[in-house]
Amino acid sequence: MREKRGKLMKVIVVSHGSYARGLVDTAQMIAGEQEDLEAFGLEPEESVDTLREKIRESIEQTSEGEEVLILTDLFYGSPFNTVISLMSEYNLYHVTGINLPLMMEVVMGRYAGKSAQEVCKDLLKAAPETVKDVRELYKEVEE
Amino acid sequence: MREKRGKLMKVIVVSHGSYARGLVDTAQMIAGEQEDLEAFGLEPEESVDTLREKIRESIEQTSEGEEVLILTDLFYGSPFNTVISLMSEYNLYHVTGINLPLMMEVVMGRYAGKSAQEVCKDLLKAAPETVKDVRELYKEVEE
Repeated sequence: MREKRGKLMKVIVVSHGSYARGLVDTAQMIAGEQEDLEAFGLEPEESVDTLREKIRESIEQTSEGEEVLILTDLFYGSPFNTVISLMSEYNLYHVTGINLPLMMEVVMGRYAGKSAQEVCKDLLKAAPETVKDVRELYKEVEE
Repeated sequence: MREKRGKLMKVIVVSHGSYARGLVDTAQMIAGEQEDLEAFGLEPEESVDTLREKIRESIEQTSEGEEVLILTDLFYGSPFNTVISLMSEYNLYHVTGINLPLMMEVVMGRYAGKSAQEVCKDLLKAAPETVKDVRELYKEVEE
């Protein structure tokens, strides 16, 4: 499939603890195993320097012209700041506050051949719709 | 702390695979260990009936008057539908599309003594702001 569609962008998910790993595993449980999708979690005993070097190594493994989209858990804290520190060195796309519906949007957008910039735009547009108060919806349906 | 503030609501996170577990573990890594916060993940080899009974058991363990807020991974699929099927039997609050910033909002709102209804309102209000295109923000700061 990959040769036909051209190069996929690389997607790297970065979080505190096991959130990134859980997000990637669950996305793969739904959509099947994905290429060029990696997860890094900062563990309590780990230094941010170690995390930064792991992410750097993953970025360095991309081929020329391959875009890199980094997804982080929340808009503050060490994982986010570690990615920020790499943004001055590399040409990175970075969306924070990722949830499972947005992760699925990334997976599908990438396979549809969208650029990282297009995927980022789609994520921001889709984000408010991905969170729903189901009790309120349920009430409306019943009324 | 708990006696002083009165009864906390119970929070149950439900997902495909390890997403719920990762979300809860990471929230606890940031905010410290939490009472009455449980995670259930539907594994590929597991039936939805087994998942439903696990969630039911957790709901049944609440005391009278204790509210239950269920957070699911995405607005379709078996975990979501399993929770929907329990909503006709129990008085449940249910927000779908949870991410880490919203999970932190739940943890903090609960400790601030907010009701499940207030927390759900807060989540819907906060949701669009939790997802950010950091490359765009970074550009604005640099300009």
